Amino acid sequence: MKSILIIGCGLLGSSLVRKIQKKKIFKNIFIYEKSKKNLKKIKKLRLKVRILKKLDLNLLHFDLIVLCTPMSEYKNIILKINKYLNSKTILTDVGSSKLEISKIIKKNLKKNINWVPSHPIAGSEVSGPENGSVDLFDNKWCVIIKDKNSNSKKINFLKTFWKKIGSKVIIMDSNKHDKIFSMTSHLPHLIAYNLVMSAQDFEKKQKYDLIKFSAGGLRDFSRIAASNEIMWRDIFFTNKRNISKAIDLFVRNLNSLKRDIKLNNDKAILRKLIQTKKVRSKIIKLKQDINKPDFGRV
Amino acid sequence: MKSILIIGCGLLGSSLVRKIQKKKIFKNIFIYEKSKKNLKKIKKLRLKVRILKKLDLNLLHFDLIVLCTPMSEYKNIILKINKYLNSKTILTDVGSSKLEISKIIKKNLKKNINWVPSHPIAGSEVSGPENGSVDLFDNKWCVIIKDKNSNSKKINFLKTFWKKIGSKVIIMDSNKHDKIFSMTSHLPHLIAYNLVMSAQDFEKKQKYDLIKFSAGGLRDFSRIAASNEIMWRDIFFTNKRNISKAIDLFVRNLNSLKRDIKLNNDKAILRKLIQTKKVRSKIIKLKQDINKPDFGRV
Repeated sequence: MKSILIIGCGLLGSSLVRKIQKKKIFKNIFIYEKSKKNLKKIKKLRLKVRILKKLDLNLLHFDLIVLCTPMSEYKNIILKINKYLNSKTILTDVGSSKLEISKIIKKNLKKNINWVPSHPIAGSEVSGPENGSVDLFDNKWCVIIKDKNSNSKKINFLKTFWKKIGSKVIIMDSNKHDKIFSMTSHLPHLIAYNLVMSAQDFEKKQKYDLIKFSAGGLRDFSRIAASNEIMWRDIFFTNKRNISKAIDLFVRNLNSLKRDIKLNNDKAILRKLIQTKKVRSKIIKLKQDINKPDFGRV
Repeated sequence: MKSILIIGCGLLGSSLVRKIQKKKIFKNIFIYEKSKKNLKKIKKLRLKVRILKKLDLNLLHFDLIVLCTPMSEYKNIILKINKYLNSKTILTDVGSSKLEISKIIKKNLKKNINWVPSHPIAGSEVSGPENGSVDLFDNKWCVIIKDKNSNSKKINFLKTFWKKIGSKVIIMDSNKHDKIFSMTSHLPHLIAYNLVMSAQDFEKKQKYDLIKFSAGGLRDFSRIAASNEIMWRDIFFTNKRNISKAIDLFVRNLNSLKRDIKLNNDKAILRKLIQTKKVRSKIIKLKQDINKPDFGRV
């Protein structure tokens, strides 16, 4: 494969660049990055990329274009690149919600362009190109979206690409994707943000200095509550129906726990607290987390 | 100091033993452990302890007795040891909630016995003596409770003890303690249990295999949702008033976030998501967590 363009070169984009470069997956790596601050950092990193200053005629030559910007920028980008796109190019992204975004893309993208969304389950609470790493995607799941009108050849092309990047590929439709990740990712992030916010409210109201005692549990949540706000706003807004249902289920269960506690309902609470343990063992067995107590913190 | 008795020798008790032994803080370390399974493990570990088979006359000789059992066992233990206690002995514990427990202790403990509660902010999702470690308390906070009738000399004795164990000591009253930890520890644990439970409910209902996608956020919560159920039931039951208030604040804030999302309230949500970032930096600055992305997981 000859040429790839990565639009948006932050944590994920720069990690892709690093891996493509190392494994020589494409001969030419181009990036487009509108933030001057990020461009400076990228130059400092001495990644072997060619920087596009404009999204123009050059786009005709790409085999693959990957959108690695926040999802709220997709529409503008599509409107800009539309006329330069080639029907041979495959266009994908790395966004974390799919159904709403696909509608926006399909509405704005010209016909005969190969749009195949992907979602690598990889990231961090830190952002920016300086925090990217060559192994960010290694052994992580990457979901490729197959909907009604998807083209199997193009999906296979993307599958090969993500496998070369180091990911394990799974294919599902937008609807299933958005439901699953509303529960395994979007709700957990919202809950973490909300818990840290509530601790801040409590601290202000009580005038207690409580963050210094966060090692008792709160600190675990503070990590994902430090994630990029633009990215997460976009996710919350574009998967709101599923997230809203997930919140309702969560609050129902929480109120039921509150009742168990109020009534000293010994049996119910022990059953619940024991039940959740199995998930941790399953996660470790599935190699979705490291097998060391306390995340191996030293 | 000559002799210490540790009642309950699981994760915390055995970690205390390891440190006392290493630093020679007491000449004689005695333990009492009612679980035969734990006793076997302790013998295998070859800790230099003497094992009490009964709580009897021997108790007269201890300078310090530390309760390291689940809090629900305190009352029975007190009733057993009461008649053998000496007014020179200091009795403490490592329990995570204080006000309710103090009432139970004071009601059942005979007069003139020096009861000074402590709470080291240290633990793990794994339990049992085999998981203890000599440095579990190093540089961690240990709260010593000072209430109306506390004896300053005894508090100073305990302060010296915990400092030798490696902890940083802070003194506060039961009421303040229980409020602070309802927010920094008890609510986070309840939320983590509840999130994992909700994911399990969702998985069953949707018949999706979703745990394998837990790297997107859920796995962080699964760690503390794997904590010991007896210990956490006891905490939830004995600090229910504060935890209940914390749940209410949390649910209010969550519903407000849900509204922001529903209404695409861009400004409100960005303000909230940015606000929580500061807590992570503060936690790292206060050395309450390691300064590596993703908890330094490899």
